Amino acid sequence: MSGNTFGKLFTVTTFGESHGAALGCIIDGCPPGLDLSEADMQKDLDLRKPGTSRHTTQRREPDEVRILSGVFEGKTTGTPIGLIIENTDQRSKDYSKISEQFRPAHADYTYTHKYGVRDYRGGGRSSARETAMRVAAGAVARKYLEQRLGIRIRGYLSQLGPIRIEKLDWDQVHQNPFFCPDADKVPEMEAYMDALRKEGDSIGARINVVADGVPPGLGEPIFDRLDADLAHALMSINAVKGVEIGAGFGCVEQKGTEHRDEMTPEGFLSNHAGGVLGGISSGQPIVASIALKPTSSLRLPGRSIDVNGNPVEVITTGRHDPCVGIRATPIAEAMMAIVLMDHYLRHRGQNGDVSVDTPVLGQL
Amino acid sequence: MSGNTFGKLFTVTTFGESHGAALGCIIDGCPPGLDLSEADMQKDLDLRKPGTSRHTTQRREPDEVRILSGVFEGKTTGTPIGLIIENTDQRSKDYSKISEQFRPAHADYTYTHKYGVRDYRGGGRSSARETAMRVAAGAVARKYLEQRLGIRIRGYLSQLGPIRIEKLDWDQVHQNPFFCPDADKVPEMEAYMDALRKEGDSIGARINVVADGVPPGLGEPIFDRLDADLAHALMSINAVKGVEIGAGFGCVEQKGTEHRDEMTPEGFLSNHAGGVLGGISSGQPIVASIALKPTSSLRLPGRSIDVNGNPVEVITTGRHDPCVGIRATPIAEAMMAIVLMDHYLRHRGQNGDVSVDTPVLGQL
Amino acid sequence: MSGNTFGKLFTVTTFGESHGAALGCIIDGCPPGLDLSEADMQKDLDLRKPGTSRHTTQRREPDEVRILSGVFEGKTTGTPIGLIIENTDQRSKDYSKISEQFRPAHADYTYTHKYGVRDYRGGGRSSARETAMRVAAGAVARKYLEQRLGIRIRGYLSQLGPIRIEKLDWDQVHQNPFFCPDADKVPEMEAYMDALRKEGDSIGARINVVADGVPPGLGEPIFDRLDADLAHALMSINAVKGVEIGAGFGCVEQKGTEHRDEMTPEGFLSNHAGGVLGGISSGQPIVASIALKPTSSLRLPGRSIDVNGNPVEVITTGRHDPCVGIRATPIAEAMMAIVLMDHYLRHRGQNGDVSVDTPVLGQL
Amino acid sequence: MSGNTFGKLFTVTTFGESHGAALGCIIDGCPPGLDLSEADMQKDLDLRKPGTSRHTTQRREPDEVRILSGVFEGKTTGTPIGLIIENTDQRSKDYSKISEQFRPAHADYTYTHKYGVRDYRGGGRSSARETAMRVAAGAVARKYLEQRLGIRIRGYLSQLGPIRIEKLDWDQVHQNPFFCPDADKVPEMEAYMDALRKEGDSIGARINVVADGVPPGLGEPIFDRLDADLAHALMSINAVKGVEIGAGFGCVEQKGTEHRDEMTPEGFLSNHAGGVLGGISSGQPIVASIALKPTSSLRLPGRSIDVNGNPVEVITTGRHDPCVGIRATPIAEAMMAIVLMDHYLRHRGQNGDVSVDTPVLGQL
Repeated sequence: MSGNTFGKLFTVTTFGESHGAALGCIIDGCPPGLDLSEADMQKDLDLRKPGTSRHTTQRREPDEVRILSGVFEGKTTGTPIGLIIENTDQRSKDYSKISEQFRPAHADYTYTHKYGVRDYRGGGRSSARETAMRVAAGAVARKYLEQRLGIRIRGYLSQLGPIRIEKLDWDQVHQNPFFCPDADKVPEMEAYMDALRKEGDSIGARINVVADGVPPGLGEPIFDRLDADLAHALMSINAVKGVEIGAGFGCVEQKGTEHRDEMTPEGFLSNHAGGVLGGISSGQPIVASIALKPTSSLRLPGRSIDVNGNPVEVITTGRHDPCVGIRATPIAEAMMAIVLMDHYLRHRGQNGDVSVDTPVLGQL
Repeated sequence: MSGNTFGKLFTVTTFGESHGAALGCIIDGCPPGLDLSEADMQKDLDLRKPGTSRHTTQRREPDEVRILSGVFEGKTTGTPIGLIIENTDQRSKDYSKISEQFRPAHADYTYTHKYGVRDYRGGGRSSARETAMRVAAGAVARKYLEQRLGIRIRGYLSQLGPIRIEKLDWDQVHQNPFFCPDADKVPEMEAYMDALRKEGDSIGARINVVADGVPPGLGEPIFDRLDADLAHALMSINAVKGVEIGAGFGCVEQKGTEHRDEMTPEGFLSNHAGGVLGGISSGQPIVASIALKPTSSLRLPGRSIDVNGNPVEVITTGRHDPCVGIRATPIAEAMMAIVLMDHYLRHRGQNGDVSVDTPVLGQL
Repeated sequence: MSGNTFGKLFTVTTFGESHGAALGCIIDGCPPGLDLSEADMQKDLDLRKPGTSRHTTQRREPDEVRILSGVFEGKTTGTPIGLIIENTDQRSKDYSKISEQFRPAHADYTYTHKYGVRDYRGGGRSSARETAMRVAAGAVARKYLEQRLGIRIRGYLSQLGPIRIEKLDWDQVHQNPFFCPDADKVPEMEAYMDALRKEGDSIGARINVVADGVPPGLGEPIFDRLDADLAHALMSINAVKGVEIGAGFGCVEQKGTEHRDEMTPEGFLSNHAGGVLGGISSGQPIVASIALKPTSSLRLPGRSIDVNGNPVEVITTGRHDPCVGIRATPIAEAMMAIVLMDHYLRHRGQNGDVSVDTPVLGQL
Repeated sequence: MSGNTFGKLFTVTTFGESHGAALGCIIDGCPPGLDLSEADMQKDLDLRKPGTSRHTTQRREPDEVRILSGVFEGKTTGTPIGLIIENTDQRSKDYSKISEQFRPAHADYTYTHKYGVRDYRGGGRSSARETAMRVAAGAVARKYLEQRLGIRIRGYLSQLGPIRIEKLDWDQVHQNPFFCPDADKVPEMEAYMDALRKEGDSIGARINVVADGVPPGLGEPIFDRLDADLAHALMSINAVKGVEIGAGFGCVEQKGTEHRDEMTPEGFLSNHAGGVLGGISSGQPIVASIALKPTSSLRLPGRSIDVNGNPVEVITTGRHDPCVGIRATPIAEAMMAIVLMDHYLRHRGQNGDVSVDTPVLGQL
């Protein structure tokens, strides 16, 4: 109940602080018989890894994951999968100042209120470094979903500050440091980020994630609707402030005749619902979009208070991402994979396997 | 795990279909000693109740709640609180047609895929009628939060289709059928709704909910952050397609220097975070906003398929809300109350009561 | 977390006090498509019902259960099943005395400490009347298990105070008021109970429960082993003070060569394990045994204290079972059914359906 | 839901196989501010450690635990505590034979049925080696309970095969390799074990555990009664086949006048209830007793089958405990500590801290 576990049947429980000894997680409930090795996770971890371009933090962490249990002779055994990533790049540093101050718009102030103490080295538990474990666990879910059900989960950056993409070319996503599917926008983004870095400021972003091939029937109304669990999962990612499914906030101005996705024997005629009806997957692509705030770790001074309530001016030194959204695509994909995996198992538990004797519409 | 329970320590488990015998719920984990009677819940239920203006469905349900257990001599005993609302306005009707068709953009198709069977009378379990129980349970949470912690939870309609409010006057919210806090916009909304009804179409809406007086420290990172649980709770309401906390999607274009809420000894200087930092309440007002889609129950014909996969044209007769957002304010308030209550108890379990020996900033 | 829910995938949440308006429960996670009517539950409820012989309490409760949701056209729909039993035999009575006293060996003292308040009418929530709902929910599990997997769950009284059965004839169990499978012992039991009633005292009992036809593979090590969940379920029944699986406490004096159940291609050669190895069902009958304490509701005076800490002498008037074990067999069967049902769904969620491609030994 | 987590607010999730890379666990929900170091856990781990006398397995594992997170500057921070024990004594060995056979009365057969695959090296996940992590986690609970509430949890061996203790001298428990509180019985036990080892057979045992100083009010009726959760926890320990609370199976033959623990202003006059009334602690010592079966890992041949269903004769070589009960005392203490800790936090969540304004009886 202390919030470090996600999922009900496919559960991911994580531990670890930014500058502690290690990060780790336990995946419980993974079906047996899945081929799994470190390489399956490393691939995704390397996409999230910092320091791969000049546009992300220069902290160098190899983020090498090690499987400690639950896999035997290359296959999952159905017992818990223990994972660990040792922290290696923990610069020895003087934390005496930050230990007494609350950085503005950080979790320093709230962690102190909640727990009375906090690990102030690099954000401690509140650091986005924790998301490495989500990516590792997500890779397991992803592999299973793809192999068994043919589900493919892919994300991309759809907006970087004021710059919106205008086309979606999946082949471009991994061809640039932004996960941007619109090659034409990449130079603009690079210039924008270079200027921003010079300025010392940061910027928000929007990420979209899409799952294709999801069978109809996943989701547990009324509270654990598929979209509600997705909202939970995505909003739990550091810096996320908004979640949309399908038309999202666009539907505020839509009329019913426009929004409703009509059906024909050949398939749905639109997908404003984002693949979820009544909290259950419809067989259409699941489409989600998230807003990430600009990081507040800036070298530009900000007003704040110290632990005694006195006013201070805070400058955050250290190595930080000027746009946390840039590395967020693999994390969002991972969370969607975990949610879908969990719901697949939940569905199978109550209802048996996914094929039901009613017509499945062709995917739009 | 089948999704009909919300909350971890303050848990709400509901049952009931639109046209079944009754709706009900069990609240488990309510602290003992709270003064409670049916009237406490009825007040909120009456706000959600249909048929109170010409702008909502004309279905007449008194929605009278009865307490069956857990309250003794006017006080909660700490044992489960059983609630029931008998369904009374179940028009006998010919469902033979709808039982064979999937209404477009409804849960008919997905429920059938998931469970193989469905109760097709009035939407069955997927009907928004289920939200009555959320409102009843939310009223209990709300009363406790207000009495013990001084928390006040209030919502309002901020946008109806193309009409956005321009001012927030809390005193106006209950003076019109829309929960609109801007009296000047009410005539425009009435005209819009009248035209819409004539047309036979429906429209989306946006609702905002604000909790004042929330102490710092509530929220369970990393997965059950306060904002993540709110997103879950709010997205689980029928028709909701988007959730924002604080600046929400606005932060995509914000710079860090703009977004970060600076602190002074007198308080925060802004609230772009919406009262949550690192997944934990900061002491500022918790601010959330949701998008509700237009209902798809229209008398304007739509293309769909029947259970045999053949094309059909569907007209939804019966009594439906042309804007489900209009009655959604009490539901959104209820879900926020349940989340805050649950997190208060979760916090108290691990950390003891909320006061911690660090300075609490004045609320903005 | 407040303890009124049992199960993870097949969950049973109950409410209701001895002398409140009603008892009720919500079954969530029941697979869709099961034929279900009130009669399926009433059958088992009638076996538990008081007042059917002179050896149980003369309180007359028809215990008529009503299904409020989750069943449509005679079949479960996969949505939550709401059940209710209205309390009818609530004698109006003067509770002023008992409200100030703690009956010895009752929950009065501990409920008061826990919650600060208690519903003192007839034991309130701590009354065994609550078990009616377990029986109703168990009947649903039982029907599913029998129809889909051929599992049969049966219990019997194996000891009443000093009287132990010497043979197990299943056909006798429902031929006498004790659920005694040894017809020769029935007259002795009747004489014993008549004398006890005259005396004003009460007595303990032992109940055995056996599930035949359980497929191998059910149980979730390491904490939710099948036997651990059974122990939880059975110990949660009012008055139970001990639980054994298979050889139980007998194995303290067994050697390994005696205890280990050897296997041959034709099957196991013994069943000291009680059908569970490593926390997982082996395909042999699941065998459990429980000890029930004598009730402490006696008309023979006992020393105690009142709410002010003063010494008092307490006489419990009212209608009580002199041996609560007599009516406990259907309750124990119900709890075993719920556990097996839950574990079947849990297994299916993670591993798919129960048949695995390894040889299943014939059942002993 | 896959069973590798215990507890609701103080949760312990473990991973690791007997001959895998490491064992580990995550403790979530530990209150912040507790002084904690590896030494606190190592003390208890060393008591469980094999190879400390000739009466236990000669496998040499240092079982050195390392804290990876959740502790900062010597204090718990309220964030998850990651623990790891690297496996060091993994003899390289030929497992080809055992991989094809099901050892009688082992989990080999049931794990294979459940998961289709199994890690056959030394029992894999089903090995009692897993209990090391329970002991480590239990040490954290124990320290908190002792420091904050003055609770003391102690266990002892009360019976070894046919040898029953006749007196309880707590000071003797750690003076012999059996955790035997009766010094006079120790020579007899040594002789018995020496003979047994020569013989090649194994034997069962009984362990008692007692918690003193538990405040009244802990336990969550109706399903998560304190005794029910204890039964769950204790039955989940490898080899346990029976659990008793207080008088246990003895109460089958007790009359109500004998069993009921009368109260006076000076305290209870007996403790047949074992400190639990109505599922809630009464303030008296919590008393539990468990039966452990003899290990089935014997060098004396036993009949079994292989994975193809053919008959085989199995001899279990390797290093095994002839009485698994001998090392079980610290494990049983650990599980009781975890249960009490969890229930303390659960109680505090719903009801606030433990002191309630009613008289607490002196402990007997």
